[in-house]
Amino acid sequence: MRIIGIITEFNPFHYGHKYFIETIRQQYHPDGIVGVMSGSFVQRGEPAICNKWARTHMALTSGVDLIIELPFAFAVRSAYPFALGAIRLLASTGVVTHLAFGSESGQLEELQTITRLLSEENPVFKRTLRQALDEGHSFPAARAAAVKASLPEVPQHIDHLLSGPNNILALEYLRVLHEEKMDIIPLTIPRIGAGYKEEDTGSCYPSATAIRSAIRRKYPLDELAALLPAESMHILYQEMKAGRAPISSDQLEQIILYKLRTASISELQQIHEVSEGLEHRIKETAMQVGTLEELRQGIKSKRYSMSRIDRILLYALFTFTNELAADFDQAGPLYHHLLGFSSSGQKVLQQMHNKSTIPIFNRGSDLKYYWHNGEPMLRDMLGLDLAASNVYTLLYPQASQRKAYSDFTTSPLRYNTNSV
Amino acid sequence: MRIIGIITEFNPFHYGHKYFIETIRQQYHPDGIVGVMSGSFVQRGEPAICNKWARTHMALTSGVDLIIELPFAFAVRSAYPFALGAIRLLASTGVVTHLAFGSESGQLEELQTITRLLSEENPVFKRTLRQALDEGHSFPAARAAAVKASLPEVPQHIDHLLSGPNNILALEYLRVLHEEKMDIIPLTIPRIGAGYKEEDTGSCYPSATAIRSAIRRKYPLDELAALLPAESMHILYQEMKAGRAPISSDQLEQIILYKLRTASISELQQIHEVSEGLEHRIKETAMQVGTLEELRQGIKSKRYSMSRIDRILLYALFTFTNELAADFDQAGPLYHHLLGFSSSGQKVLQQMHNKSTIPIFNRGSDLKYYWHNGEPMLRDMLGLDLAASNVYTLLYPQASQRKAYSDFTTSPLRYNTNSV
Repeated sequence: MRIIGIITEFNPFHYGHKYFIETIRQQYHPDGIVGVMSGSFVQRGEPAICNKWARTHMALTSGVDLIIELPFAFAVRSAYPFALGAIRLLASTGVVTHLAFGSESGQLEELQTITRLLSEENPVFKRTLRQALDEGHSFPAARAAAVKASLPEVPQHIDHLLSGPNNILALEYLRVLHEEKMDIIPLTIPRIGAGYKEEDTGSCYPSATAIRSAIRRKYPLDELAALLPAESMHILYQEMKAGRAPISSDQLEQIILYKLRTASISELQQIHEVSEGLEHRIKETAMQVGTLEELRQGIKSKRYSMSRIDRILLYALFTFTNELAADFDQAGPLYHHLLGFSSSGQKVLQQMHNKSTIPIFNRGSDLKYYWHNGEPMLRDMLGLDLAASNVYTLLYPQASQRKAYSDFTTSPLRYNTNSV
Repeated sequence: MRIIGIITEFNPFHYGHKYFIETIRQQYHPDGIVGVMSGSFVQRGEPAICNKWARTHMALTSGVDLIIELPFAFAVRSAYPFALGAIRLLASTGVVTHLAFGSESGQLEELQTITRLLSEENPVFKRTLRQALDEGHSFPAARAAAVKASLPEVPQHIDHLLSGPNNILALEYLRVLHEEKMDIIPLTIPRIGAGYKEEDTGSCYPSATAIRSAIRRKYPLDELAALLPAESMHILYQEMKAGRAPISSDQLEQIILYKLRTASISELQQIHEVSEGLEHRIKETAMQVGTLEELRQGIKSKRYSMSRIDRILLYALFTFTNELAADFDQAGPLYHHLLGFSSSGQKVLQQMHNKSTIPIFNRGSDLKYYWHNGEPMLRDMLGLDLAASNVYTLLYPQASQRKAYSDFTTSPLRYNTNSV
């Protein structure tokens, strides 16, 4: 059996994703594709444009066989813990044999050369890295400088290799596979289309950022239709019609400012990634500003990227502490929350039931059971996912849709592949 | 010296208040009128229509000489602790000789008869009260039944006497003066105009509720002008133009739902006035609803009046616990936060500086000093006021006005009586 794992956000599922899935199918003929997907909030520290079941539905209609939620504790994290959590979750299914990921490079060999360097951290690398960090450079910039200084033969496109957002994640995936000595085989698919942060919607493969921005600016539906595969568009439209989408960070403005203004400094100090006096900077800025955008700009500095700040604001909202993060990183994901599966995914699921090393939540009531009866650390991890959903649903445009407990009341989507 | 104390909210300052102040001046010729006033949030558990300095300004232009903030810990409370906190605050000035209050009755004698009964709690009273409570009646209803059962001669208008909202507060004021053996002399002024909750704006003296509702529904300015004294109208208009008013509970909807959905049951259990399993009812309702109005309706029951629920929601927002409430009720107000004074109020203030039994905050920097250096209980009490202001300013319609720390940056208003 060849089961290919992928690590995704599908925010929303677009033509680039569709191409990625189709390429996997054509090149590798897998017996199944298992996706690990962010839930209510995504890696860049914002709420997803529509909820996790709608995004799962999009993925199932486009050839993914089974979707598992990547817990908030790993989904809303910087590249390395995100990669570590996601790959461990795939590995703990017991059935995933390969990991496929996109990269700007598309060349596994050159990515692996750099990975080994990063893993071994040779003396030149270490020294250059420390120097660059001391000079106040961000970690990615410092690392790029250190790689350049350490390689005997620097590829011409090294800057591109170390700065492409997909390459950066790809390097982390390879690092995790290497360091954790996993027997999952990496496969990389060259990315096509616009860079993921580019705003241009004119490309054949517009970026997810451009698409979200168009959706939030309420593009006419026929123009949106050109940006998304028909199935995605249909599902998104249903969500919008029902008053559950689109969702954006701006809607968190008042809650975030309330939370930061009323939190004590010692409470903020314990929040994950808050260090070096950042708690004071966050608190003081929250006291002075009236909008989320002013807050983000006020906290930003050379050392803290915007995504990192956005994530920290979410950590504060959900009281995700350094202590919890350390425990979770040690333990890895503690459950499989199934979001949906196709009829072929059902066969994968049957195998998972035999081989998974952690519990599988097959239905909403399983989450409720574990929330009440699970081990303390599982409850902490699950509690974050539940809180994330319960705050996410508050953001629904239609008030009657804002019920909490969606995780308890929603069972995995079942998608009949044969009926299409 | 005859210094008359009054207990107020001025939300906003209207013709009824103006009449009240003028009557005090005409009937009692005081050397000064000192007002204790709610701050950012008022007794019925909602944010004031405009901020405390604007309301102070209104009062000073209409003949009040000095305004002191009633701390949140007493302002947002049921009738008895509200009355106790307010009267203790007046007493601790060391200069207030009289307490004037409005009542529907206007007859001090009959109010005092009932007060003595409530204070002594004779056996018939106690038994009837307990029975009525056991039958599930609210406290005010049970008390009315008990009073009727205990009085040898029941005044014909007893129901009116025990249900008029001003009478109810008046009875609490008299009870506090009696029980605390204070040598402040009570004076009652008959109330005129619409009942304070009536929505009719047609009366010569429309109620504050009707006025707030008209302001929030954005009545044309010329129609609003008929509802408020010219000075109040002018000040309110300036606040609206600056983007600091009007403020309403609805704006707290998302924050309250966020707070309740993410709070643990044990956290809710510790919130003041949450007992008898109410924490579960609050939590479950917050999980099911999408609006503040649904939340209030969902929590309401025969035992819990709407105002009480509104107050409890604010307690949850500011983590005002039973433990804090018990400490504060024991200690009484611990500081005088001056909000403003007139030139004649300045003479009262000079006396207060000699006679006050608690510190007087003369300027914003005094609050900052005590917030950092005060005794723990003072800091807890002041912390609630600061948090209330810092969340209140978040509700300002104009984003650039939403700065926190207004208490640190705003010194008392000085109003020159002679210049008018």
